[in-house]
Amino acid sequence: MKNILVIGAGLSASSMLRYFTQNAEKEDWYIKVVDQNADLAKAKVAGCDRAEGFSIDALNPAERQPLIEWAHLVISMLPARFHTEVAEDCIKYKTNLITPSYISKEMVALNEAAEEAGILIMNEIGVDPGIDHMSAKKILDEIEEKGGKMHIFESFTGGLIAPESDDNPWNYKFTWNPRNVVLAGQGSAAKFIQEGQYKYIPYNKLFRRTEIINIEGYGEFEGYANRDSLKYRSKYGLDDIPTIYRGTFRRKGFSKAWDCFVQLGATDDTYILEGSKDMTKRDFINAFLPYNLHDSVELKLRYYLKIDMDDIVWDKLVWLGIFEKEKMGFTEDVTPAYFLQKILEEKWALGSDDKDMIVMWHKFVYKMDGEFKEINSHMVSIGEDRTYTAMSNTVGLPCAICAKMILNGTIQMKGVQLPIHKEIYDPILDELETYDIKFTEKEINPPVMYLEPARL
Amino acid sequence: MKNILVIGAGLSASSMLRYFTQNAEKEDWYIKVVDQNADLAKAKVAGCDRAEGFSIDALNPAERQPLIEWAHLVISMLPARFHTEVAEDCIKYKTNLITPSYISKEMVALNEAAEEAGILIMNEIGVDPGIDHMSAKKILDEIEEKGGKMHIFESFTGGLIAPESDDNPWNYKFTWNPRNVVLAGQGSAAKFIQEGQYKYIPYNKLFRRTEIINIEGYGEFEGYANRDSLKYRSKYGLDDIPTIYRGTFRRKGFSKAWDCFVQLGATDDTYILEGSKDMTKRDFINAFLPYNLHDSVELKLRYYLKIDMDDIVWDKLVWLGIFEKEKMGFTEDVTPAYFLQKILEEKWALGSDDKDMIVMWHKFVYKMDGEFKEINSHMVSIGEDRTYTAMSNTVGLPCAICAKMILNGTIQMKGVQLPIHKEIYDPILDELETYDIKFTEKEINPPVMYLEPARL
Repeated sequence: MKNILVIGAGLSASSMLRYFTQNAEKEDWYIKVVDQNADLAKAKVAGCDRAEGFSIDALNPAERQPLIEWAHLVISMLPARFHTEVAEDCIKYKTNLITPSYISKEMVALNEAAEEAGILIMNEIGVDPGIDHMSAKKILDEIEEKGGKMHIFESFTGGLIAPESDDNPWNYKFTWNPRNVVLAGQGSAAKFIQEGQYKYIPYNKLFRRTEIINIEGYGEFEGYANRDSLKYRSKYGLDDIPTIYRGTFRRKGFSKAWDCFVQLGATDDTYILEGSKDMTKRDFINAFLPYNLHDSVELKLRYYLKIDMDDIVWDKLVWLGIFEKEKMGFTEDVTPAYFLQKILEEKWALGSDDKDMIVMWHKFVYKMDGEFKEINSHMVSIGEDRTYTAMSNTVGLPCAICAKMILNGTIQMKGVQLPIHKEIYDPILDELETYDIKFTEKEINPPVMYLEPARL
Repeated sequence: MKNILVIGAGLSASSMLRYFTQNAEKEDWYIKVVDQNADLAKAKVAGCDRAEGFSIDALNPAERQPLIEWAHLVISMLPARFHTEVAEDCIKYKTNLITPSYISKEMVALNEAAEEAGILIMNEIGVDPGIDHMSAKKILDEIEEKGGKMHIFESFTGGLIAPESDDNPWNYKFTWNPRNVVLAGQGSAAKFIQEGQYKYIPYNKLFRRTEIINIEGYGEFEGYANRDSLKYRSKYGLDDIPTIYRGTFRRKGFSKAWDCFVQLGATDDTYILEGSKDMTKRDFINAFLPYNLHDSVELKLRYYLKIDMDDIVWDKLVWLGIFEKEKMGFTEDVTPAYFLQKILEEKWALGSDDKDMIVMWHKFVYKMDGEFKEINSHMVSIGEDRTYTAMSNTVGLPCAICAKMILNGTIQMKGVQLPIHKEIYDPILDELETYDIKFTEKEINPPVMYLEPARL
């Protein structure tokens, strides 16, 4: 029997735990799930006699280590900063480890120790990062194999609302951590490279420099740039590529409206808004507008942000209720970002029957035999319900399948790794297809090298 | 004889040291000036047989303490973070201390020890902070004395170029630390209170929400908000004031043009611009613009920032040479802010005959006998030359005069203080007038409570 330890039973663990319990008998597994919340851990494996859920303090080595010693494989769904500690235990007890989080420098430094211990520590094997790496690297490797030289790589992913549940003017609901959505893009400027030129987009322009992508059967999406596209050059072995750009999808029109909050300063999380405890939504918006005794908050906002009378962003703003004289009921003063988040949470909440949607799209332009060629590839995954969401499926299933491949010997690799090797991505992508997480490729002729003025 | 120790002989110490050497005989002073640069320290007191300049490491207690023990009064022109150490020595040796810098929490904590030692530690006694406190507090105290209740306090200061040296389209040259000018306004949103409503301006709007002030004889200035106007409420005993606003002056039209760099992201100092070592000025600007094979950097910039054909910001931008295909000659990659600073330094350098100008303006609206009344007060100081600049005069003379008043017993106060007490500001403002640093007051009738739409 092979023993699996899952640390963390939250939202994104649901689909993974379903996979484990459904396959436990066939694969001869025993699964232990631990979480701060014992009930949650128990519920996620209920009805399976080869699994148990209970509560431990996973940050306490004395509670964690006996379980890691017991396990053949650990999946850590902890916040990323705790993975290194767990990894050190895994090395000590020669237990394999999987995490869906971004790899850290500290984790990279454990490579040799992991190789010596004869274990695999697989990182970034969720959806983004995860499925993006696997699906992109598969095509990149194929292009290289047939002698093509990569010229442009673009990649966008979005966690959105499924078309059948899409019933508000933003075409958006919170399907994941709302705080991350409000803070998205803050910090350093977004950077990428285009035709060999480094390009930088500051936060105050980020949501106005979007790219529109049409995905057959799903309509138009718009993408804004992620913080650092450049680190993917070395990750994918594309150090000399002239253009690399990674971004985040929203539905077309979202970003221009969102930019209103950015311009106001309403997404700022660096200071406490004085008196915000007692502010109405209307007061909140007014805190960012010039003082004036006569004019309405509405007209001041239109003038300040130059919103034309017929601009469709206006309907989006009004629909959010930002002009209502309704207090939020905070017990203490909060940051602007938090205030905005709470306004949005009322309106962008998922309904009980709502389904989410993960959309991923890649563009590859390469040169072969003196000619440019383009391939586009996309994947759309719709959630089953509020438990087995598209997010939970696309994060949890790659982890779970990878776990199986390690335990049954399909994956033999050791050390600290990313899922960018054929040995890893081929079997995982194949099995993901059986869960309807699959990519559609098409050739684009002629290739679109960049947007010429006539096509802007 | 009274002994004065001046730590730091830089630009802002020139006028102070001239005051000391000119008055040394009459006041029976002996002055020691120390600086890292011995030649600089010597030069600043050359020709005075009651003064000497030499080099010490002021951060080394063993070198500093014997001098502090020797002195009756120390003036520290060190960077603000070193003042506390010097203050602790001053308490130990019962030596008075003056600094023009903002008071720190650590400094406030020394109040009791300073009182026990029977010394005065005077802070914030330069120009801004310094003359602003004294000139504002004088009028605030007068208003309070006659029974008025403050309703609006606004205060602006600018370090600018004198009208006779003002010969470029920005009406601006670097008269002080260029780096601070490029980074001005970054960090948290500017906050103030207007008619009891807290107002916040994020960096990306800071230079578009300016207030225009006309100063008789000097024309129009525009002010943008300083980071934190609210802290002056408690400083000035105005905790209940409905409107308080502090800002920085530029010449009218500066801010709209400067905002182009803010919108581009060219003032960002948080990351290194890849490849900037080899970039031309034109490449630098292009790094913030979308890629396009055909269009010029000029047209892309106009379109991106929506700069109309007849907008006068355009002349300012072109005049700076930002479209020139000229490399900067950096030896390594730099931040955007540094790149921009070096472009500006070429164009905004002071000529050898140029004079600087300090402009300060206060607005007081108060209620008395059921009626609102308004007083405006302004001070304009023009530099003498490149050594005795307006900045040097307005920072150095308040320090020097305060030193005299302490040493001759006019100021008897002890402890850690700001120049907000009549005992301090009255004699200092009086003597500053003899150096032509004087305020002109006028009553405004009817008072301007806030800008109504018809007057925007």
